[in-house]
Amino acid sequence: MSLRAIADGMSAMAQVEKESLASDESVAAAATKRGLFVVFEGIDGSGKSSAAKRIFEVLANEMPGRVMLTAEPTETWLGDCVRRANKEELSGSAEALLFVADRSEHSLRIAQWLREGKIVLCDRYFASTVAYQGAALKESMGAKNAIEWLKAINEPIIVQPDLTLLFSIRVDMALERLKQRSGMSKFENLDYLKEVDLIYRLLCMEDSNFFTVDASRPLEQVIRIALAAIRAKL
Amino acid sequence: MSLRAIADGMSAMAQVEKESLASDESVAAAATKRGLFVVFEGIDGSGKSSAAKRIFEVLANEMPGRVMLTAEPTETWLGDCVRRANKEELSGSAEALLFVADRSEHSLRIAQWLREGKIVLCDRYFASTVAYQGAALKESMGAKNAIEWLKAINEPIIVQPDLTLLFSIRVDMALERLKQRSGMSKFENLDYLKEVDLIYRLLCMEDSNFFTVDASRPLEQVIRIALAAIRAKL
Repeated sequence: MSLRAIADGMSAMAQVEKESLASDESVAAAATKRGLFVVFEGIDGSGKSSAAKRIFEVLANEMPGRVMLTAEPTETWLGDCVRRANKEELSGSAEALLFVADRSEHSLRIAQWLREGKIVLCDRYFASTVAYQGAALKESMGAKNAIEWLKAINEPIIVQPDLTLLFSIRVDMALERLKQRSGMSKFENLDYLKEVDLIYRLLCMEDSNFFTVDASRPLEQVIRIALAAIRAKL
Repeated sequence: MSLRAIADGMSAMAQVEKESLASDESVAAAATKRGLFVVFEGIDGSGKSSAAKRIFEVLANEMPGRVMLTAEPTETWLGDCVRRANKEELSGSAEALLFVADRSEHSLRIAQWLREGKIVLCDRYFASTVAYQGAALKESMGAKNAIEWLKAINEPIIVQPDLTLLFSIRVDMALERLKQRSGMSKFENLDYLKEVDLIYRLLCMEDSNFFTVDASRPLEQVIRIALAAIRAKL
Protein backbone atom coordinates (compact mmCIF):
# COMPACT_ATOMS: atom_id res chain seq x y z
CA MET A 1 0.00 0.00 0.00
CA SER A 2 1.44 3.40 -0.98
CA LEU A 3 1.70 6.41 1.34
CA ARG A 4 -0.90 8.08 -0.86
CA ALA A 5 -3.32 5.21 -0.21
CA ILE A 6 -2.65 5.56 3.52
CA ALA A 7 -3.31 9.30 3.33
CA ASP A 8 -6.57 8.68 1.42
CA GLY A 9 -7.55 6.15 4.05
CA MET A 10 -6.92 8.65 6.82
CA SER A 11 -8.91 11.29 4.99
CA ALA A 12 -11.85 8.88 4.72
CA MET A 13 -11.40 8.07 8.42
CA ALA A 14 -11.51 11.76 9.30
CA GLN A 15 -14.79 12.11 7.43
CA VAL A 16 -16.37 9.14 9.20
CA GLU A 17 -15.03 10.55 12.46
CA LYS A 18 -16.83 13.87 11.98
CA GLU A 19 -20.07 12.09 11.23
CA SER A 20 -19.69 9.79 14.21
CA LEU A 21 -18.93 12.62 16.58
CA ALA A 22 -22.00 14.49 15.38
CA SER A 23 -24.20 11.48 15.92
CA ASP A 24 -22.65 10.77 19.34
CA GLU A 25 -23.36 14.32 20.41
CA SER A 26 -26.99 14.11 19.43
CA VAL A 27 -27.40 10.80 21.29
CA ALA A 28 -25.87 12.38 24.41
CA ALA A 29 -28.02 15.49 24.08
CA ALA A 30 -31.21 13.46 23.65
CA ALA A 31 -30.31 11.32 26.64
CA THR A 32 -29.72 14.32 28.89
CA LYS A 33 -32.86 16.06 27.74
CA ARG A 34 -35.18 13.21 28.56
CA GLY A 35 -33.90 11.76 31.84
CA LEU A 36 -31.82 12.78 34.83
CA PHE A 37 -28.52 11.20 35.81
CA VAL A 38 -27.59 11.58 39.49
CA VAL A 39 -24.38 10.13 40.91
CA PHE A 40 -23.65 9.51 44.60
CA GLU A 41 -20.00 9.89 45.54
CA GLY A 42 -17.97 9.95 48.75
CA ILE A 43 -15.52 7.95 50.85
CA ASP A 44 -16.54 4.71 52.52
CA GLY A 45 -18.55 5.45 55.67
CA SER A 46 -19.96 8.71 54.30
CA GLY A 47 -23.43 7.18 54.24
CA LYS A 48 -23.99 7.73 50.52
CA SER A 49 -25.24 4.17 49.83
CA SER A 50 -27.81 4.33 52.64
CA ALA A 51 -28.93 7.76 51.41
CA ALA A 52 -29.15 6.55 47.78
CA LYS A 53 -31.41 3.67 48.79
CA ARG A 54 -33.71 5.90 50.86
CA ILE A 55 -33.88 8.57 48.13
CA PHE A 56 -34.67 5.89 45.57
CA GLU A 57 -37.60 4.71 47.74
CA VAL A 58 -38.97 8.25 48.10
CA LEU A 59 -38.71 9.10 44.39
CA ALA A 60 -39.90 5.68 43.17
CA ASN A 61 -42.95 6.10 45.37
CA GLU A 62 -43.70 9.50 43.79
CA MET A 63 -42.92 8.42 40.21
CA PRO A 64 -43.54 4.66 39.92
CA GLY A 65 -41.51 3.02 37.13
CA ARG A 66 -39.48 6.16 36.38
CA VAL A 67 -36.59 5.79 38.82
CA MET A 68 -33.63 3.39 38.59
CA LEU A 69 -31.09 2.66 41.34
CA THR A 70 -27.80 1.26 40.11
CA ALA A 71 -24.25 0.94 41.45
CA GLU A 72 -20.63 0.27 40.57
CA PRO A 73 -18.94 -2.14 40.42
CA THR A 74 -22.00 -3.67 38.75
CA GLU A 75 -23.63 -7.03 39.48
CA THR A 76 -22.32 -8.51 36.20
CA TRP A 77 -19.32 -10.69 35.35
CA LEU A 78 -17.37 -7.47 34.65
CA GLY A 79 -18.17 -6.25 38.17
CA ASP A 80 -17.00 -9.67 39.42
CA CYS A 81 -13.67 -9.05 37.64
CA VAL A 82 -13.27 -5.78 39.57
CA ARG A 83 -14.00 -7.54 42.87
CA ARG A 84 -11.59 -10.38 42.03
CA ALA A 85 -8.83 -7.88 41.09
CA ASN A 86 -9.33 -6.14 44.43
CA LYS A 87 -9.27 -9.41 46.37
CA GLU A 88 -6.14 -10.67 44.57
CA GLU A 89 -4.43 -7.28 44.99
CA LEU A 90 -3.68 -6.76 41.31
CA SER A 91 -1.82 -3.60 40.34
CA GLY A 92 -3.71 -0.31 40.67
CA SER A 93 -3.63 0.20 36.91
CA ALA A 94 -5.15 -3.22 36.12
CA GLU A 95 -7.83 -2.58 38.73
CA ALA A 96 -8.59 0.87 37.29
CA LEU A 97 -8.88 -0.53 33.75
CA LEU A 98 -11.28 -3.23 34.96
CA PHE A 99 -13.42 -0.62 36.74
CA VAL A 100 -13.61 1.35 33.50
CA ALA A 101 -14.35 -1.75 31.39
CA ASP A 102 -17.28 -2.47 33.72
CA ARG A 103 -18.34 1.20 33.50
CA SER A 104 -18.15 1.15 29.72
CA GLU A 105 -20.90 -1.49 29.48
CA HIS A 106 -22.82 0.05 32.41
CA SER A 107 -22.83 3.43 30.66
CA LEU A 108 -24.59 1.90 27.64
CA ARG A 109 -27.41 0.77 29.95
CA ILE A 110 -27.50 4.15 31.72
CA ALA A 111 -27.71 5.98 28.36
CA GLN A 112 -30.61 3.71 27.35
CA TRP A 113 -32.49 4.41 30.63
CA LEU A 114 -31.97 8.15 30.13
CA ARG A 115 -33.33 7.91 26.57
CA GLU A 116 -36.40 6.28 28.12
CA GLY A 117 -36.78 9.33 30.40
CA LYS A 118 -35.71 7.56 33.59
CA ILE A 119 -34.19 9.20 36.66
CA VAL A 120 -31.02 7.18 37.18
CA LEU A 121 -29.46 7.15 40.66
CA CYS A 122 -25.96 5.66 40.52
CA ASP A 123 -23.97 4.74 43.64
CA ARG A 124 -20.36 5.53 42.54
CA TYR A 125 -19.30 6.38 39.00
CA PHE A 126 -16.11 7.70 37.35
CA ALA A 127 -15.15 10.12 40.16
CA SER A 128 -14.73 7.05 42.42
CA THR A 129 -12.12 5.62 40.06
CA VAL A 130 -10.27 8.93 39.78
CA ALA A 131 -10.30 9.38 43.58
CA TYR A 132 -9.61 5.80 44.77
CA GLN A 133 -7.28 4.60 42.01
CA GLY A 134 -5.67 8.04 41.82
CA ALA A 135 -4.69 7.66 45.47
CA ALA A 136 -3.55 4.07 44.84
CA LEU A 137 -1.47 4.94 41.73
CA LYS A 138 0.09 8.05 43.24
CA GLU A 139 3.27 6.28 44.28
CA SER A 140 3.98 4.46 41.03
CA MET A 141 2.83 7.09 38.52
CA GLY A 142 2.82 10.38 40.42
CA ALA A 143 -0.44 12.03 41.50
CA LYS A 144 -0.85 14.39 38.54
CA ASN A 145 -0.06 11.75 35.91
CA ALA A 146 -2.33 9.24 37.64
CA ILE A 147 -5.29 11.63 37.79
CA GLU A 148 -4.82 12.69 34.17
CA TRP A 149 -4.55 9.09 32.99
CA LEU A 150 -7.66 8.06 34.96
CA LYS A 151 -9.64 10.95 33.48
CA ALA A 152 -8.40 10.06 29.98
CA ILE A 153 -9.35 6.38 30.17
CA ASN A 154 -12.86 7.35 31.38
CA GLU A 155 -13.42 10.25 29.02
CA PRO A 156 -14.98 8.61 25.93
CA ILE A 157 -17.01 5.95 27.74
CA ILE A 158 -18.92 7.93 30.38
CA VAL A 159 -22.32 9.59 30.37
CA GLN A 160 -21.90 13.07 31.86
CA PRO A 161 -23.86 13.22 35.17
CA ASP A 162 -26.44 16.00 35.53
CA LEU A 163 -25.68 16.08 39.25
CA THR A 164 -22.96 14.52 41.38
CA LEU A 165 -23.75 14.52 45.08
CA LEU A 166 -20.50 14.45 47.03
CA PHE A 167 -21.12 13.14 50.55
CA SER A 168 -18.50 14.97 52.54
CA ILE A 169 -17.40 13.87 55.99
CA ARG A 170 -14.26 14.03 58.10
CA VAL A 171 -12.19 10.91 57.42
CA ASP A 172 -11.85 9.98 61.10
CA MET A 173 -15.63 10.20 61.53
CA ALA A 174 -16.18 7.98 58.47
CA LEU A 175 -13.72 5.43 59.87
CA GLU A 176 -15.57 5.44 63.22
CA ARG A 177 -18.74 4.49 61.33
CA LEU A 178 -16.89 1.80 59.35
CA LYS A 179 -15.57 0.16 62.50
CA GLN A 180 -19.13 -0.81 63.30
CA ARG A 181 -19.24 -2.84 60.06
CA SER A 182 -17.40 -6.11 59.47
CA GLY A 183 -14.94 -6.90 56.67
CA MET A 184 -13.19 -3.60 56.09
CA SER A 185 -11.47 -3.50 52.70
CA LYS A 186 -7.91 -2.49 51.94
CA PHE A 187 -9.24 0.93 50.95
CA GLU A 188 -10.41 1.67 54.47
CA ASN A 189 -7.49 3.22 56.35
CA LEU A 190 -6.94 6.79 57.48
CA ASP A 191 -4.02 7.92 55.29
CA TYR A 192 -5.42 6.35 52.15
CA LEU A 193 -8.93 7.78 52.67
CA LYS A 194 -7.42 11.23 53.27
CA GLU A 195 -5.84 11.07 49.80
CA VAL A 196 -9.12 9.87 48.30
CA ASP A 197 -10.96 12.70 50.03
CA LEU A 198 -8.44 15.23 48.68
CA ILE A 199 -8.92 14.08 45.08
CA TYR A 200 -12.72 14.17 45.49
CA ARG A 201 -12.40 17.82 46.61
CA LEU A 202 -10.25 18.66 43.62
CA LEU A 203 -12.78 17.09 41.24
CA CYS A 204 -15.54 19.02 42.98
CA MET A 205 -13.66 22.30 42.46
CA GLU A 206 -13.33 21.57 38.72
CA ASP A 207 -16.88 20.48 37.98
CA SER A 208 -19.93 22.69 38.44
CA ASN A 209 -22.23 19.64 38.45
CA PHE A 210 -20.86 18.61 41.85
CA PHE A 211 -22.94 19.44 44.91
CA THR A 212 -21.41 18.87 48.34
CA VAL A 213 -23.64 17.43 51.06
CA ASP A 214 -22.48 17.67 54.67
CA ALA A 215 -22.67 13.98 55.51
CA SER A 216 -21.77 14.41 59.18
CA ARG A 217 -25.38 15.48 59.88
CA PRO A 218 -28.05 12.95 60.88
CA LEU A 219 -29.17 10.77 57.93
CA GLU A 220 -32.67 12.32 57.78
CA GLN A 221 -31.21 15.79 57.25
CA VAL A 222 -28.70 14.50 54.70
CA ILE A 223 -31.50 12.87 52.74
CA ARG A 224 -33.60 16.05 52.84
CA ILE A 225 -30.72 18.16 51.49
CA ALA A 226 -29.81 15.64 48.78
CA LEU A 227 -33.46 15.29 47.71
CA ALA A 228 -33.81 19.07 47.43
CA ALA A 229 -30.72 19.20 45.18
CA ILE A 230 -32.19 16.46 42.94
CA ARG A 231 -35.63 18.10 42.77
CA ALA A 232 -33.98 21.39 41.72
CA LYS A 233 -32.76 19.56 38.59
CA LEU A 234 -36.09 17.92 37.71
CA MET B 1 -10.40 20.94 54.64
CA SER B 2 -9.30 24.41 53.53
CA LEU B 3 -8.11 25.30 50.05
CA ARG B 4 -4.69 25.90 51.59
CA ALA B 5 -4.65 22.35 52.93
CA ILE B 6 -5.61 21.09 49.48
CA ALA B 7 -2.80 23.12 47.90
CA ASP B 8 -0.32 21.73 50.45
CA GLY B 9 -1.54 18.24 49.71
CA MET B 10 -1.02 18.75 45.98
CA SER B 11 2.45 20.12 46.57
CA ALA B 12 3.33 17.02 48.59
CA MET B 13 1.84 14.90 45.82
CA ALA B 14 3.99 16.68 43.21
CA GLN B 15 7.12 15.90 45.24
CA VAL B 16 6.25 12.21 45.54
CA GLU B 17 5.46 12.25 41.83
CA LYS B 18 8.94 13.49 40.92
CA GLU B 19 10.53 10.80 43.07
CA SER B 20 8.30 8.07 41.64
CA LEU B 21 9.00 9.08 38.05
CA ALA B 22 12.71 9.01 38.72
CA SER B 23 12.51 5.52 40.17
CA ASP B 24 10.25 4.30 37.31
CA GLU B 25 12.75 5.59 34.77
CA SER B 26 15.62 3.76 36.37
CA VAL B 27 13.61 0.51 36.47
CA ALA B 28 12.81 0.90 32.75
CA ALA B 29 16.42 1.73 31.91
CA ALA B 30 17.75 -1.25 33.86
CA ALA B 31 15.21 -3.54 32.19
CA THR B 32 16.15 -2.43 28.69
CA LYS B 33 19.84 -2.71 29.41
CA ARG B 34 19.72 -6.29 30.58
CA GLY B 35 17.22 -8.09 28.34
CA LEU B 36 15.66 -7.75 24.89
CA PHE B 37 11.95 -7.29 24.27
CA VAL B 38 10.77 -8.37 20.82
CA VAL B 39 7.12 -8.08 19.78
CA PHE B 40 5.49 -9.93 16.86
CA GLU B 41 2.67 -8.01 15.20
CA GLY B 42 0.51 -8.41 12.11
CA ILE B 43 -2.99 -9.26 10.93
CA ASP B 44 -4.42 -12.74 11.37
CA GLY B 45 -3.02 -15.07 8.73
CA SER B 46 0.28 -13.19 8.47
CA GLY B 47 2.10 -16.18 9.93
CA LYS B 48 3.56 -14.26 12.89
CA SER B 49 2.58 -16.86 15.51
CA SER B 50 4.15 -19.73 13.55
CA ALA B 51 7.27 -17.63 13.03
CA ALA B 52 7.42 -16.65 16.73
CA LYS B 53 7.29 -20.32 17.79
CA ARG B 54 10.03 -21.34 15.34
CA ILE B 55 12.24 -18.40 16.28
CA PHE B 56 11.78 -19.23 19.95
CA GLU B 57 12.96 -22.81 19.28
CA VAL B 58 16.05 -21.61 17.41
CA LEU B 59 17.06 -19.02 20.05
CA ALA B 60 16.18 -21.23 23.04
CA ASN B 61 18.42 -23.91 21.56
CA GLU B 62 21.31 -21.45 21.27
CA MET B 63 20.75 -19.83 24.66
CA PRO B 64 19.06 -22.36 26.97
CA GLY B 65 17.01 -20.75 29.76
CA ARG B 66 17.45 -17.22 28.42
CA VAL B 67 14.50 -16.98 26.00
CA MET B 68 10.79 -16.58 26.89
CA LEU B 69 7.87 -16.94 24.48
CA THR B 70 4.69 -15.23 25.63
CA ALA B 71 1.48 -14.00 23.99
CA GLU B 72 -1.59 -11.80 24.43
CA PRO B 73 -4.31 -12.23 25.47
CA THR B 74 -2.49 -14.15 28.21
CA GLU B 75 -3.35 -17.57 29.63
CA THR B 76 -4.64 -16.04 32.89
CA TRP B 77 -8.12 -15.16 34.15
CA LEU B 78 -7.60 -11.65 32.75
CA GLY B 79 -6.92 -13.18 29.31
CA ASP B 80 -10.10 -15.24 29.80
CA CYS B 81 -12.00 -11.96 30.35
CA VAL B 82 -10.74 -10.67 26.98
CA ARG B 83 -11.82 -13.90 25.24
CA ARG B 84 -15.23 -13.79 26.95
CA ALA B 85 -15.76 -10.13 25.95
CA ASN B 86 -14.96 -11.04 22.35
CA LYS B 87 -17.30 -14.04 22.37
CA GLU B 88 -20.16 -12.04 23.94
CA GLU B 89 -19.57 -9.13 21.54
CA LEU B 90 -19.16 -6.49 24.22
CA SER B 91 -18.54 -2.92 23.07
CA GLY B 92 -15.18 -2.16 21.46
CA SER B 93 -14.24 0.13 24.35
CA ALA B 94 -14.92 -2.50 27.05
CA GLU B 95 -12.94 -5.03 25.01
CA ALA B 96 -10.03 -2.59 24.61
CA LEU B 97 -9.97 -1.84 28.36
CA LEU B 98 -9.91 -5.56 29.18
CA PHE B 99 -7.02 -6.12 26.73
CA VAL B 100 -5.09 -3.35 28.49
CA ALA B 101 -5.97 -4.64 31.98
CA ASP B 102 -4.55 -8.02 30.94
CA ARG B 103 -1.49 -6.26 29.44
CA SER B 104 -0.98 -4.24 32.62
CA GLU B 105 -0.33 -7.39 34.67
CA HIS B 106 1.52 -9.08 31.78
CA SER B 107 3.88 -6.08 31.52
CA LEU B 108 4.92 -6.54 35.16
CA ARG B 109 6.00 -10.11 34.32
CA ILE B 110 7.76 -8.95 31.12
CA ALA B 111 9.63 -6.23 33.04
CA GLN B 112 10.75 -8.84 35.58
CA TRP B 113 12.01 -11.21 32.83
CA LEU B 114 13.91 -8.31 31.23
CA ARG B 115 15.50 -7.47 34.60
CA GLU B 116 16.65 -11.10 34.72
CA GLY B 117 18.34 -10.59 31.33
CA LYS B 118 15.85 -12.68 29.33
CA ILE B 119 15.06 -12.32 25.63
CA VAL B 120 11.27 -11.95 25.65
CA LEU B 121 9.38 -12.83 22.45
CA CYS B 122 5.78 -11.61 22.67
CA ASP B 123 3.07 -12.59 20.18
CA ARG B 124 0.94 -9.39 20.02
CA TYR B 125 1.29 -6.41 22.36
CA PHE B 126 -0.10 -2.87 22.46
CA ALA B 127 0.05 -2.23 18.69
CA SER B 128 -2.53 -5.03 18.30
CA THR B 129 -4.97 -3.17 20.52
CA VAL B 130 -4.42 0.13 18.71
CA ALA B 131 -4.84 -1.54 15.30
CA TYR B 132 -7.72 -3.96 16.00
CA GLN B 133 -9.73 -1.92 18.51
CA GLY B 134 -8.92 1.27 16.60
CA ALA B 135 -10.60 -0.24 13.55
CA ALA B 136 -13.51 -1.46 15.70
CA LEU B 137 -14.03 1.90 17.48
CA LYS B 138 -13.68 3.99 14.31
CA GLU B 139 -17.41 4.25 13.76
CA SER B 140 -18.45 5.19 17.29
CA MET B 141 -15.50 7.42 18.28
CA GLY B 142 -13.91 8.51 15.01
CA ALA B 143 -10.59 7.04 13.85
CA LYS B 144 -8.30 9.75 15.19
CA ASN B 145 -9.98 9.92 18.62
CA ALA B 146 -10.02 6.13 18.87
CA ILE B 147 -6.32 5.79 18.06
CA GLU B 148 -5.38 8.57 20.48
CA TRP B 149 -7.50 7.09 23.26
CA LEU B 150 -6.04 3.61 22.72
CA LYS B 151 -2.50 4.97 22.84
CA ALA B 152 -3.34 6.95 26.00
CA ILE B 153 -4.82 4.01 27.91
CA ASN B 154 -1.73 1.91 27.06
CA GLU B 155 0.88 4.57 27.65
CA PRO B 156 1.68 4.21 31.38
CA ILE B 157 1.37 0.42 31.59
CA ILE B 158 3.54 -0.83 28.72
CA VAL B 159 7.18 -1.81 28.51
CA GLN B 160 8.64 -0.18 25.40
CA PRO B 161 9.64 -2.93 22.92
CA ASP B 162 13.22 -2.92 21.66
CA LEU B 163 12.00 -4.32 18.34
CA THR B 164 8.52 -4.77 16.87
CA LEU B 165 8.45 -7.14 13.90
CA LEU B 166 5.48 -6.24 11.70
CA PHE B 167 4.52 -9.22 9.55
CA SER B 168 3.17 -7.54 6.45
CA ILE B 169 0.99 -9.34 3.91
CA ARG B 170 -1.80 -8.46 1.48
CA VAL B 171 -5.11 -8.83 3.29
CA ASP B 172 -6.64 -11.07 0.60
CA MET B 173 -3.62 -13.39 0.82
CA ALA B 174 -3.93 -13.54 4.65
CA LEU B 175 -7.62 -14.39 4.33
CA GLU B 176 -6.82 -17.19 1.87
CA ARG B 177 -4.54 -18.67 4.52
CA LEU B 178 -7.20 -18.24 7.23
CA LYS B 179 -9.82 -20.10 5.18
CA GLN B 180 -7.75 -23.22 5.65
CA ARG B 181 -8.26 -22.90 9.43
CA SER B 182 -11.51 -23.55 11.23
CA GLY B 183 -13.38 -21.14 13.54
CA MET B 184 -12.67 -17.74 12.01
CA SER B 185 -13.30 -14.92 14.49
CA LYS B 186 -15.35 -11.76 13.95
CA PHE B 187 -12.07 -9.94 13.27
CA GLU B 188 -11.41 -11.98 10.17
CA ASN B 189 -13.13 -10.25 7.26
CA LEU B 190 -11.67 -8.28 4.36
CA ASP B 191 -12.87 -4.73 5.08
CA TYR B 192 -12.10 -4.92 8.77
CA LEU B 193 -8.62 -6.37 8.26
CA LYS B 194 -7.86 -3.65 5.70
CA GLU B 195 -8.52 -1.03 8.40
CA VAL B 196 -6.37 -2.95 10.87
CA ASP B 197 -3.59 -3.17 8.30
CA LEU B 198 -3.80 0.58 7.65
CA ILE B 199 -3.42 1.42 11.36
CA TYR B 200 -0.47 -0.98 11.67
CA ARG B 201 1.24 0.89 8.79
CA LEU B 202 0.62 4.22 10.49
CA LEU B 203 2.12 2.95 13.75
CA CYS B 204 5.10 1.62 11.81
CA MET B 205 5.67 5.05 10.21
CA GLU B 206 5.68 6.70 13.65
CA ASP B 207 7.95 4.29 15.50
CA SER B 208 11.56 3.61 14.57
CA ASN B 209 11.53 0.35 16.55
CA PHE B 210 9.20 -1.24 13.98
CA PHE B 211 10.76 -3.51 11.36
CA THR B 212 8.57 -4.72 8.51
CA VAL B 213 8.94 -8.32 7.37
CA ASP B 214 7.48 -9.33 4.00
CA ALA B 215 5.27 -12.15 5.26
CA SER B 216 4.11 -13.23 1.78
CA ARG B 217 7.43 -15.06 1.33
CA PRO B 218 7.85 -18.74 2.27
CA LEU B 219 7.99 -19.25 6.06
CA GLU B 220 11.67 -20.31 6.04
CA GLN B 221 12.70 -17.01 4.42
CA VAL B 222 10.45 -15.00 6.77
CA ILE B 223 12.06 -16.67 9.78
CA ARG B 224 15.57 -16.01 8.44
CA ILE B 225 14.81 -12.30 7.95
CA ALA B 226 13.13 -11.92 11.36
CA LEU B 227 15.98 -13.77 13.10
CA ALA B 228 18.53 -11.48 11.46
CA ALA B 229 16.62 -8.42 12.72
CA ILE B 230 16.58 -9.84 16.27
CA ARG B 231 20.29 -10.77 16.20
CA ALA B 232 21.14 -7.23 15.09
CA LYS B 233 19.70 -6.03 18.43
CA LEU B 234 21.52 -8.58 20.62
